[in-house]
Amino acid sequence: MSFEYLADPESGPQWKGILPGAPEAYFLRRGEGERAMLFTDLFTVLLSGDETEGQFGIFTMDAPEGRLIPAHTHHDTHETFYVVEGKVRVHVRDRDGTQTSRLLTLGDFGFVPAGLAHAYQVEEQARVLGVATGGFERFFQQMGTPTDHPTADQPPFVPDLPRMQAAARAHNMDFLPDLAWPEAGE
Amino acid sequence: MSFEYLADPESGPQWKGILPGAPEAYFLRRGEGERAMLFTDLFTVLLSGDETEGQFGIFTMDAPEGRLIPAHTHHDTHETFYVVEGKVRVHVRDRDGTQTSRLLTLGDFGFVPAGLAHAYQVEEQARVLGVATGGFERFFQQMGTPTDHPTADQPPFVPDLPRMQAAARAHNMDFLPDLAWPEAGE
Repeated sequence: MSFEYLADPESGPQWKGILPGAPEAYFLRRGEGERAMLFTDLFTVLLSGDETEGQFGIFTMDAPEGRLIPAHTHHDTHETFYVVEGKVRVHVRDRDGTQTSRLLTLGDFGFVPAGLAHAYQVEEQARVLGVATGGFERFFQQMGTPTDHPTADQPPFVPDLPRMQAAARAHNMDFLPDLAWPEAGE
Repeated sequence: MSFEYLADPESGPQWKGILPGAPEAYFLRRGEGERAMLFTDLFTVLLSGDETEGQFGIFTMDAPEGRLIPAHTHHDTHETFYVVEGKVRVHVRDRDGTQTSRLLTLGDFGFVPAGLAHAYQVEEQARVLGVATGGFERFFQQMGTPTDHPTADQPPFVPDLPRMQAAARAHNMDFLPDLAWPEAGE
């Protein structure tokens, strides 16, 4: 944990030194990592593409029950959902246009490959472990804001539109706000 | 779940159709996936390199308290440990020869990059989520044997030496049986 930001409070917590930034061994205790708030959710990066030669990154999301995260597509990013606590519904639209959803609970898993429109909603306070193509793990930091507090029980961070657009552009991501989802099934 | 092996019991359970084998969306319930026993441990592949263009694979390990898994190196594979239940000690030797270990418990995380010697020991019955460079997730199937039973509470499978050697060779992996580890610290 690094606290350089104490010298310049406006710059906020810094993540420097928490991850090695290169393929070197390290360990993290539960809750440690590069933490950022985005809306009501805490995202913690445990591993980045810098440690895996760009292959994959890993992050956790700690989130209260909330509204639907609108449909979006990331064209270069494979993404997974593994539920460690709580309940999260994942919606996905297949290449043939079929839309499905699944309520994921403890130990359940979902995969959304690059290029497919998807959305999700935390239906009961959740911790989700995400794995994605290396580099994408930084998205939540770029759209959100750094924090030292290790839980989502803190003021939300609402990015302005230019910040949201810049983060989406940096990750070749499109939002599809008009895409509706059928009533939930399983 | 597929049961073709009922027609030919010797071939054992088949995994065909559990994962899509291509970048397509899918969901798994807790315990679903391609299951294999290796010694006393159940490995379940949730995602393979076939779904991620070779970027990464994901598996769980369900294991009782056990002996040290001897030191080994996989030269092309980055590997992570995320503890979902129980306690696992991970040992690693850095490039400068320094040997460290950490007892990982619920929510703790460890990273071992390609090329570093490491070992691990389940100190209390555990479930660990592993993420690794795509393709490595098949190692446990190649050294182990398919099973339909969704827990580790079943007879162990002890591979013979040629099977072990073939699996290690297929994943560019070396065992270092003579490498000892210092007494455990943290």
